[in-house]
Amino acid sequence: MPNYHDELDAVLRALADPTRRAVVERLAKSPAVVSELAAPFSMALPSLLQHLRVLEDAGLVTSEKHGRVRTVSLRPSALDVLHLWLGEQRTPAERQADRLAIHLNRAT
Amino acid sequence: MPNYHDELDAVLRALADPTRRAVVERLAKSPAVVSELAAPFSMALPSLLQHLRVLEDAGLVTSEKHGRVRTVSLRPSALDVLHLWLGEQRTPAERQADRLAIHLNRAT
Repeated sequence: MPNYHDELDAVLRALADPTRRAVVERLAKSPAVVSELAAPFSMALPSLLQHLRVLEDAGLVTSEKHGRVRTVSLRPSALDVLHLWLGEQRTPAERQADRLAIHLNRAT
Repeated sequence: MPNYHDELDAVLRALADPTRRAVVERLAKSPAVVSELAAPFSMALPSLLQHLRVLEDAGLVTSEKHGRVRTVSLRPSALDVLHLWLGEQRTPAERQADRLAIHLNRAT
């Protein structure tokens, strides 16, 4: 089980590549088979499989093989670690704006 | 003016390094002078300055020099691009949960 910081390193490194980010964007809509994921990219299949391996190692996607067809899915909690970290970085001004928004919501 | 995807690439690459992430975490609390930022890391000052340059190139931090002292600040909108991208990746199940939460909030 990787710790929080190692997990963040892996997730951020995985997402810093535009091809891998496009794969995540596609999988956020629904799971897809590998050939479907490869279609928008003019890249050899082994290169795409390598990108998928990076995403899988970072815990962002899972895949299952049925017969000759491999289906790839975004892990439901895939981006939680990033949401969590971003939440922690809210600046004092942003926290103040959050509190004001909560206050205004309660007042209406 | 970099486009959205180039900006995301730069921000994610900048944040994928634990030292740079620690600097951002520190600056989310308040601006700091370079020597203060360097203190928690056992690293030569030129290496830290290089990390700061990557953060500055990615649009995450700005710095100002007064006399011999350079003060570094997190840009107020620094992480917006990442918030935006994460928001776009919400899965259909998460969007449904969002709508349910809004509905429940309205009902009370």
